[in-house]
Amino acid sequence: MADHKPLIVVSNDDGITAKGIRTLVELMQQLGSVVVVAPNSPQSGMGHAITIANPLRLYPSDIFAGVPAYECSGTPADCVKLAKHHVLKDRLPDLVVSGVNHGSNSAISVLYSGTMSAAIEAAIEGIPAIGFSLCDYTSNPDFSHAHAHILAITRNVLERGMKRGTALNVNFPAHSAEPLKGIRICRQANAKYQERFDERRDPHGRRYFWLEGDFVNFDTHAEDTDEYALSQNYTSIVPCQYDMTSYGMVDEMRGWEL
Amino acid sequence: MADHKPLIVVSNDDGITAKGIRTLVELMQQLGSVVVVAPNSPQSGMGHAITIANPLRLYPSDIFAGVPAYECSGTPADCVKLAKHHVLKDRLPDLVVSGVNHGSNSAISVLYSGTMSAAIEAAIEGIPAIGFSLCDYTSNPDFSHAHAHILAITRNVLERGMKRGTALNVNFPAHSAEPLKGIRICRQANAKYQERFDERRDPHGRRYFWLEGDFVNFDTHAEDTDEYALSQNYTSIVPCQYDMTSYGMVDEMRGWEL
Repeated sequence: MADHKPLIVVSNDDGITAKGIRTLVELMQQLGSVVVVAPNSPQSGMGHAITIANPLRLYPSDIFAGVPAYECSGTPADCVKLAKHHVLKDRLPDLVVSGVNHGSNSAISVLYSGTMSAAIEAAIEGIPAIGFSLCDYTSNPDFSHAHAHILAITRNVLERGMKRGTALNVNFPAHSAEPLKGIRICRQANAKYQERFDERRDPHGRRYFWLEGDFVNFDTHAEDTDEYALSQNYTSIVPCQYDMTSYGMVDEMRGWEL
Repeated sequence: MADHKPLIVVSNDDGITAKGIRTLVELMQQLGSVVVVAPNSPQSGMGHAITIANPLRLYPSDIFAGVPAYECSGTPADCVKLAKHHVLKDRLPDLVVSGVNHGSNSAISVLYSGTMSAAIEAAIEGIPAIGFSLCDYTSNPDFSHAHAHILAITRNVLERGMKRGTALNVNFPAHSAEPLKGIRICRQANAKYQERFDERRDPHGRRYFWLEGDFVNFDTHAEDTDEYALSQNYTSIVPCQYDMTSYGMVDEMRGWEL
């Protein structure tokens, strides 16, 4: 690790009052100087949304004793932009961490994840970044079994840096009687929600819909996926990139008549 | 093309009243049976957001004569989910097209793009999909120079299908005196917005921020990018995938002490 104390920006998508970000702030204080910029309301499922048609608000918060913190009216990606360009006056932090999310961001969920959008936004700015998520959707889960892994993974990123254009998607199994078996480097599983809409009527007789669904893994025979690692009580790490080009399809399309 | 008339779902992110979706609906009627499910308000910059904490509304619309259409209170990704699961009763359409967006979705903009999130959402469901965007942000641009390319690209996708897990990101140069030179298959350029925030005071004296920025291309020496193609007055196609795994980084991380 460099001699200077690393500057670490912490964000999340469950909002600045969530237990997960409090856990992450406490752990990051062991590793560096912490600045928090996080949404003032839950932003789950916001994907890589940014606020372009509305102004943003940013207010100082004293929620974390001794830690400079700001709550923002925007999305997780907005928070990272405001952290870099406004709060830090364009000084690049050494690391951006996001989470710990209350709920899984494995497999296809990385696309919908506000937690990971903060990490990917940092990667776009050339900042090493990690999104942490716990496979437990409750508001008061036990994060303690994940502490050692959060510190080990973060220390590695601070020491080694990241390949340009990438960020880590880290998921932890929910707390259980068994200790975590270890950490696995994985690929994103081919797994998604089989969805449906629950149709209801409001008190005025008008229809509305709730999205619901069951998670289905189509990669059940593979042992190199995040889903498999989590199912075996390992912490999963998927290194993600924001270059979405399908190079295989680029080659295939050379034969098209266009 | 199959003997049956293809079923084509049209969506967008500028909202159901935008000129771009009207253009796309008219063109798609030449190729198949069209069903429209589009947002009832602009959703630019929404990325791959989905609505999970609020119910969704869906209302029939007679905005397109003779074409079944629905306006939705949610995001572009929500529209595709509602189209498949509710409007089409889980029948898979042959194609989902999104756009034509009023503005570029080249390079890094694919991550922030509501237009492309509709296409990627379709790809997740195994449906061939294309997002179309015009590099013109005005509300009443001339789309006529792009018509032939829209039809040619769509016919190819209907005939050949897409590689599983991929969708096309198609961008057109803005209308000019020069005709388009052709179509190029490209990779996503390493180009992004150099951003800043314009800080203002509201009438009550409280601060707010507007995001603004200048687009900068770091891939200026490359000729295989979408940015280069567009700069040379070609239509660009980037085939995109939703597997965000950085396989290069997976290999590199095997040496980490975790």
